[in-house]
Amino acid sequence: MKHLTATDIEQMDKIYRLNLINSCTGYKAANLIGTKSKDGITNLAIFNSFVHLGSNPALIGFILRPLTVPRHTYTNFKTTKFFTVNHVTTAMIADAHHTAAGYPEDISEFTKTNLTEEYLDNFHAPFVKESPLKLGCQYKNEYLVKENGTLLIVASIEHIYYEEAMQWEDGWMQLDKANIVTANGLDGYAATQLVKRYQYARPDQETKAFE
Amino acid sequence: MKHLTATDIEQMDKIYRLNLINSCTGYKAANLIGTKSKDGITNLAIFNSFVHLGSNPALIGFILRPLTVPRHTYTNFKTTKFFTVNHVTTAMIADAHHTAAGYPEDISEFTKTNLTEEYLDNFHAPFVKESPLKLGCQYKNEYLVKENGTLLIVASIEHIYYEEAMQWEDGWMQLDKANIVTANGLDGYAATQLVKRYQYARPDQETKAFE
Repeated sequence: MKHLTATDIEQMDKIYRLNLINSCTGYKAANLIGTKSKDGITNLAIFNSFVHLGSNPALIGFILRPLTVPRHTYTNFKTTKFFTVNHVTTAMIADAHHTAAGYPEDISEFTKTNLTEEYLDNFHAPFVKESPLKLGCQYKNEYLVKENGTLLIVASIEHIYYEEAMQWEDGWMQLDKANIVTANGLDGYAATQLVKRYQYARPDQETKAFE
Repeated sequence: MKHLTATDIEQMDKIYRLNLINSCTGYKAANLIGTKSKDGITNLAIFNSFVHLGSNPALIGFILRPLTVPRHTYTNFKTTKFFTVNHVTTAMIADAHHTAAGYPEDISEFTKTNLTEEYLDNFHAPFVKESPLKLGCQYKNEYLVKENGTLLIVASIEHIYYEEAMQWEDGWMQLDKANIVTANGLDGYAATQLVKRYQYARPDQETKAFE
């Protein structure tokens, strides 16, 4: 096995390090965040830093890079409080990745991709019509990670829309049934296939999979 | 599409809600955290809440549930400062999931699974021998998410060990080459296959994949 130390990492070329460190923590969710500015201009941006924070109340978190350059997504949800989270399928990956391009604030990524703006139940922020699983979220709080200036954004889940075919009787959603991809680093997208889902683990009992 | 509101979610059966909300934010990394107490007792536990925080310095984060019950992983890395992060492959999923069982503090999950303790370069915490990609990390800080009592743990990457076959020339690691799985909710494990990796996205230019 190859071994790299903190000193090796420090001395790497910047892009090499970025590729390595972004991929070495494992697969991430690939989600498009949809927002709309107070002037009505929409924005769509790919994020791969979502975490589950809690079920009751239903809270999610994601990491935002330091605010040293304008962040349209951040400005929009800070002003309006609302954003959407839209899962990416294999058919959507080229367009999803393209939302990372640095368009100016008055250009909507919806107009530069084949992804379609959709408004549901009077929610302020735009959903992505093509997405099989989408959340309507409300900004709650943010925490500054002082070690490097990133922000942990905390939001509540106000709405969930999804294709029912992917849901099991006990509420769990089998994401591969809707061809939802997973992110490998900042620019890789992988298709998935469920191997097994396990029952609740208990000491000294065999870990059994659901049939 | 099925639509659920915040009120629907609030009124759900607890387990149904847990399954739904844990799976609805998308795929996560499935990583085993290895620690060793000051008394020399090892611990191994599955986590699916890792985020990338930054490349320079190389920082990772993960979410820990509220400290209302004893958390052996937390106690160990708070005392010793060190822990390991070990990726899970398809061959390891039953054992990885079993580490979630509630063993008492004096029982090591290494003794209750087929996963093997490994010590590398005098690092305090145990690695998982079977894992093809593993990080040696140092605890740096924690942030209390006051909305529900969870903690964001911030740590630096001090060591990376990996099978070189999965790395591209530009540093990026193609995780499916080592059969690394992704987590679907708290109990589902999915195999992965890279669909495409894209080049840096630029405005008004076609998003090109690497060949």
